Amino acid sequence: MHLGLIGLGKMGANMRARLREHGIDVTGYDRNPAVSDVADLAALKAALPAPRAVWVMVPAGEITDSVVTELADLLDEGDLVIDGGNSRFTEDFAHAEVLAARGIRFVDAGVSGGVWGEEFGYGLMVGGADDDIAELMPVFDALRPEGPREEGFVHVGPVGAGHYAKMVHNGIEYALMQAYAEGYELLAKRTDLISDVPATFKAWQRGTVVRSWLLELLVDALEKDPQMDDIEGYVEDSGEGRWTVEEAIANAVPVPTISASIFARFVSRQDDSPAMRAVAALRNEFGGHSVKKAPAGE
Amino acid sequence: MHLGLIGLGKMGANMRARLREHGIDVTGYDRNPAVSDVADLAALKAALPAPRAVWVMVPAGEITDSVVTELADLLDEGDLVIDGGNSRFTEDFAHAEVLAARGIRFVDAGVSGGVWGEEFGYGLMVGGADDDIAELMPVFDALRPEGPREEGFVHVGPVGAGHYAKMVHNGIEYALMQAYAEGYELLAKRTDLISDVPATFKAWQRGTVVRSWLLELLVDALEKDPQMDDIEGYVEDSGEGRWTVEEAIANAVPVPTISASIFARFVSRQDDSPAMRAVAALRNEFGGHSVKKAPAGE
Amino acid sequence: MHLGLIGLGKMGANMRARLREHGIDVTGYDRNPAVSDVADLAALKAALPAPRAVWVMVPAGEITDSVVTELADLLDEGDLVIDGGNSRFTEDFAHAEVLAARGIRFVDAGVSGGVWGEEFGYGLMVGGADDDIAELMPVFDALRPEGPREEGFVHVGPVGAGHYAKMVHNGIEYALMQAYAEGYELLAKRTDLISDVPATFKAWQRGTVVRSWLLELLVDALEKDPQMDDIEGYVEDSGEGRWTVEEAIANAVPVPTISASIFARFVSRQDDSPAMRAVAALRNEFGGHSVKKAPAGE
Amino acid sequence: MHLGLIGLGKMGANMRARLREHGIDVTGYDRNPAVSDVADLAALKAALPAPRAVWVMVPAGEITDSVVTELADLLDEGDLVIDGGNSRFTEDFAHAEVLAARGIRFVDAGVSGGVWGEEFGYGLMVGGADDDIAELMPVFDALRPEGPREEGFVHVGPVGAGHYAKMVHNGIEYALMQAYAEGYELLAKRTDLISDVPATFKAWQRGTVVRSWLLELLVDALEKDPQMDDIEGYVEDSGEGRWTVEEAIANAVPVPTISASIFARFVSRQDDSPAMRAVAALRNEFGGHSVKKAPAGE
Repeated sequence: MHLGLIGLGKMGANMRARLREHGIDVTGYDRNPAVSDVADLAALKAALPAPRAVWVMVPAGEITDSVVTELADLLDEGDLVIDGGNSRFTEDFAHAEVLAARGIRFVDAGVSGGVWGEEFGYGLMVGGADDDIAELMPVFDALRPEGPREEGFVHVGPVGAGHYAKMVHNGIEYALMQAYAEGYELLAKRTDLISDVPATFKAWQRGTVVRSWLLELLVDALEKDPQMDDIEGYVEDSGEGRWTVEEAIANAVPVPTISASIFARFVSRQDDSPAMRAVAALRNEFGGHSVKKAPAGE
Repeated sequence: MHLGLIGLGKMGANMRARLREHGIDVTGYDRNPAVSDVADLAALKAALPAPRAVWVMVPAGEITDSVVTELADLLDEGDLVIDGGNSRFTEDFAHAEVLAARGIRFVDAGVSGGVWGEEFGYGLMVGGADDDIAELMPVFDALRPEGPREEGFVHVGPVGAGHYAKMVHNGIEYALMQAYAEGYELLAKRTDLISDVPATFKAWQRGTVVRSWLLELLVDALEKDPQMDDIEGYVEDSGEGRWTVEEAIANAVPVPTISASIFARFVSRQDDSPAMRAVAALRNEFGGHSVKKAPAGE
Repeated sequence: MHLGLIGLGKMGANMRARLREHGIDVTGYDRNPAVSDVADLAALKAALPAPRAVWVMVPAGEITDSVVTELADLLDEGDLVIDGGNSRFTEDFAHAEVLAARGIRFVDAGVSGGVWGEEFGYGLMVGGADDDIAELMPVFDALRPEGPREEGFVHVGPVGAGHYAKMVHNGIEYALMQAYAEGYELLAKRTDLISDVPATFKAWQRGTVVRSWLLELLVDALEKDPQMDDIEGYVEDSGEGRWTVEEAIANAVPVPTISASIFARFVSRQDDSPAMRAVAALRNEFGGHSVKKAPAGE
Repeated sequence: MHLGLIGLGKMGANMRARLREHGIDVTGYDRNPAVSDVADLAALKAALPAPRAVWVMVPAGEITDSVVTELADLLDEGDLVIDGGNSRFTEDFAHAEVLAARGIRFVDAGVSGGVWGEEFGYGLMVGGADDDIAELMPVFDALRPEGPREEGFVHVGPVGAGHYAKMVHNGIEYALMQAYAEGYELLAKRTDLISDVPATFKAWQRGTVVRSWLLELLVDALEKDPQMDDIEGYVEDSGEGRWTVEEAIANAVPVPTISASIFARFVSRQDDSPAMRAVAALRNEFGGHSVKKAPAGE
């Protein structure tokens, strides 16, 4: 199997390495010539046997859009494009359509595992036609973790289903992280009782109900920085959590923990909350409760 | 009617003024001789006709506890103590018992209205025996707003019921404030669309579904400080919101908006969130997402 | 002033009545000939002096879309269309564009007040060009409540701003309703303490911090049905609450109480919660906790 | 080492078995003679070498209180009582005091692992004096899972610390379960995209960020009942989640996901929500929105 791979950032480069280690030929293309195997997309096309399989691993949104558009122009009928980035599942429908107009097939692949995937394999959720998925199985088998295939790979459904599943996966992930984080704060608050917060998390790794990979990562983080002194409580989000809430709303599914997790991230990024200014102002109006004056010059 | 009134802080002094304006004789006692009508509690007792009615208007918790204990020792059988402070309703049961042991009657009164109560009257929710409430009606009628009695006063039930109702009132209040505050932030965020946030709130005062007294207060606050520049998004809480959530939990009542409101206040008082440090650390562990380093010396 | 009014359902018919009572000529059109003043849109056009002003008061979404499209074909350059329905503000941009292509002007109007508006006036939030708003002021003044104009009417900003403000208004409204509802449940739960729940709400109408129009409506509802026996805890939503959360997410604004309110409505409409089945199944797996078996045939 | 064990229900009996398999002598007592090793507590005392170690494994609350009280009367100075049940950490302080008055030592142990603990070991979090913990290490080592001691056992701090950590553990557990459950509902809702929900969860077990023991249990549950048809969305709670929220409130720690999880359980147990009746009634009042009439006779 010979795969084209567009996008050799942190994730893409790791995946190229893992694919090659598992016997897949990979020709990678990146705008950065220092990491690219070929000079341009035309060279990528030329390097691949027809029908070609080209895996796109670039930032979701405009960049993925433009790469898909380029590939629609460049590739031949019967070729196959896989979007392994974090695209919103609704974008898959548009991408599939653009490509289908040229007779090019499309598969979407949700990829989980982060920087650990190169070593341990990536959790894969894919959407597309049965035949297309079958054709790509050597690639998926190379990328997924050791062990039974069905524990690290799933053909979820038609185009879009892979990214839908990945979106939900990430929504869950947000809430799991928030859950541990709330527990961390509860433990850290009671220094009178909890003599060693990192040791407490460490001891939850075996036998408990809350044991998980995220817990192990938290244990690792606390070993490096036991008081979490070196880090600020400022958390970005990369979109999937927002989309999950939006889908939940569109489908009338209550998601109180997932939404709470994304809101907590929003708050973490505010220097001062406009909403809480309004609450402070209101309290002052009816109760004469004193307010904190904003520092001069703010 | 001649009432003893213990505690002449902001609320107590205002209430004394309103009571006197409405024809109730009041002898007030405060530890601060500058505002007190009598030198000590013994003098207060001596000034009142038996059976005495003594309204306690001091901070809830230890101070109310100690005043009630003192009154249990001081007063005579058949006297009547009213706790008009923000005591937790569960404390009423203990206070009533301490006083009953000396044959002293007890009534609890939830009082709403803040600094505006002197002028417009106080919303009153009281708990206690029918005869005791009946005896105090002149006082309640003087304190409550003009208009039909049943629109500003209620005998909620037995001892504790007044403070329970007031606790729920304040829980609701927290969530109402938070609701307007979220709306404020949503309006303030879209400066491209909303040319004048204060004018928008002002226009909601008539005809809309959200019109309320809190809305009027928010309009007043925005007139003084249209950008909310002079105020920090830091909000204290005085206990009733917490008790409301605790009671909800004790009674298996879901209170998602009330709890969200109290949590938003907790967050508003944190310089940096330990929980969000943990989330940031976790993201860094699995995704190699960059974190914000805490400033040196923090 | 002579206004065309399309859509004579509950809201439209009430508005026609109020406009006429306040000296505005109205020619109304509805698909239902029993309530329509004219036979069709062509007749509506013919009845109005140029430049025409046509107020659209039909369900948001497809129906508003199709009416706007028809009007774009029908009306003349210089005419003016007002969308007074519950359209999402993002739709206003599209509608304005369609109309502008024909030289037709567009104003969006958020209208609050429900069935009470005919008698007491409607709270109005409008978006559009200054000149267009100025031209329509007689209509707005007829619709809005008595009292200072700025307490029941606001020109919020450009096209879309009126519906944005109305959307936020409704988001707040959802959370306010939920707040009172949580308080209701807390009071209703403690029958040992709260001898009369309706009387407690009734007494909050004067002097308290939580007094509002919604509170008055709740008092009315409890007078008709003191135990809320005749009603099911099943609550629809009409879109604005969802859009508010979606906008909040798009703008990284935390809205915990508004989202909690919409989720509570979603849950209220479920016979059984798939999520809670999953939780029950999980508890059973790790703890051997018994589960409730679904009734046979479910 | 010879341990007394009071309470041979599901958990206690499993623990007795595991302890014996790992070389600890256990004399167990239960009110149910069919499972008890001795006839009564006096016989239990007689069977144990002094200083005795007696592990209490009975339901938290009144039953644990009464057992501790009995042991305070029965045991000798220098003996040691361990509470391995799900007691609230605040109760540990009282129990320790009662026992200390008789010179009896006390250790609290939070035990996680449910029905799986017998086979795989129990996660242990203990609180107490260093010497007492040291004395009990053979017992803890027998109960905890294989592997490094610090990954399945922790001496958290003084008396109460073990149960505090266990309480937080369970609070986290509630939110983790709710997170997966929300994801389940989101997947199950889109039958157009997700052709096989159980297979999707199964595939998350390797390589993904959300892999965990709870996920494995959910996979097991879905294998037995792929549509979750046999189970009702009705979820009890055993107290720790409530206590976690109460502690959070007492310490001003925001816990939006943990509280959302417990509220979701409360809602799951309601046939009809009083709060949502109030919302439905309010909507009807202002908007004339139709309500669902409760079935006659309800």
